[in-house]
Amino acid sequence: MSQPLADSALDQLFRTARTYNGYLDKPVSTEQLHAIWNLMKMAPTSANQLPARLVWCVSQEAREKLAACSAPTNAPKIMSAPVAVIIAMDTQFQEQLPWLFPHADARSWFTGNDALRERSAFINTTLQAAYFIMAARAIGLDTGPMTGFSNEAVDAAFLPETPDYKSVMISTLGYGDPASIFDRSPRPDFDVFNRIA
Amino acid sequence: MSQPLADSALDQLFRTARTYNGYLDKPVSTEQLHAIWNLMKMAPTSANQLPARLVWCVSQEAREKLAACSAPTNAPKIMSAPVAVIIAMDTQFQEQLPWLFPHADARSWFTGNDALRERSAFINTTLQAAYFIMAARAIGLDTGPMTGFSNEAVDAAFLPETPDYKSVMISTLGYGDPASIFDRSPRPDFDVFNRIA
Repeated sequence: MSQPLADSALDQLFRTARTYNGYLDKPVSTEQLHAIWNLMKMAPTSANQLPARLVWCVSQEAREKLAACSAPTNAPKIMSAPVAVIIAMDTQFQEQLPWLFPHADARSWFTGNDALRERSAFINTTLQAAYFIMAARAIGLDTGPMTGFSNEAVDAAFLPETPDYKSVMISTLGYGDPASIFDRSPRPDFDVFNRIA
Repeated sequence: MSQPLADSALDQLFRTARTYNGYLDKPVSTEQLHAIWNLMKMAPTSANQLPARLVWCVSQEAREKLAACSAPTNAPKIMSAPVAVIIAMDTQFQEQLPWLFPHADARSWFTGNDALRERSAFINTTLQAAYFIMAARAIGLDTGPMTGFSNEAVDAAFLPETPDYKSVMISTLGYGDPASIFDRSPRPDFDVFNRIA
């Protein structure tokens, strides 16, 4: 049975963590990208679907290409960050289930049910996007998740050889520049959006 | 600038945490539910939309009602847990944006764009579902997230007075029974689902 994490950890993960719009000039290593994946992959998806496919844009060229697919207000954020990641969903994730979920014939659950397959790809990839944010924070990095980009342009620019992959979210990654954040938006008390039954 | 969390914290959040199918006979307090909300609400959603609406089923009656809406394999998991939470999305979340995101007229972004509004409600509620899982783990609790239930039945049983709220996910919550977990499913190495550009 676990105990609550220390307040300093809760601060780092949730309370003082922020979405950054600019980053310090400090690199992120390949080992840190692997560390994020090795944490985020452990968190749960339905029947271990793990439908997220990630393209980590590290080179100047890749970040320029991504910035060109993004909303004008997001492009400079991408260029300020040492890394920007594209989180895409594999809409044919079920083809991997025979080895990812050996307990049952989970692939067959999606045969002839495109609506379930597409909803499942989207919901589980989005869960993994949140796990990415939390894993990055857990290893001491900051993120700037965004949906303000052209999915079609990103898919054409980065995923032309895998037409089943569709971009869902992008995020900057690095050591956030405290000067780049906005004032914290309001966070409602429990009773506003919660009910106990 | 943050440091990586201690290995024990990374284990609790990601590496040794598991999805539980049964729970110990140990209650969860209302204060713990508030603590989860007060952490998860701090994590990012697009323009601070916070579209998730949560119904925490604590009473025997509420859990029985939820179990009756769920897949037969999920009903006993719900009855074994001290708490089961319904995570719904407010499909009219934009009505709250004047106070949740005072920086801009974000409500107007969704006027006449139902597809964007619905995608935004779904993606941001799903992010919040992942934040719920991580927040619960961070305060020492275990979860059992699931999508195997009838959305229509849950909405009719729990959300009849708020027809704009649509259930997305449910999860059990409590102190997990180690005897109730399955063998860990495989987790792929970085190179399987990731690419550096």
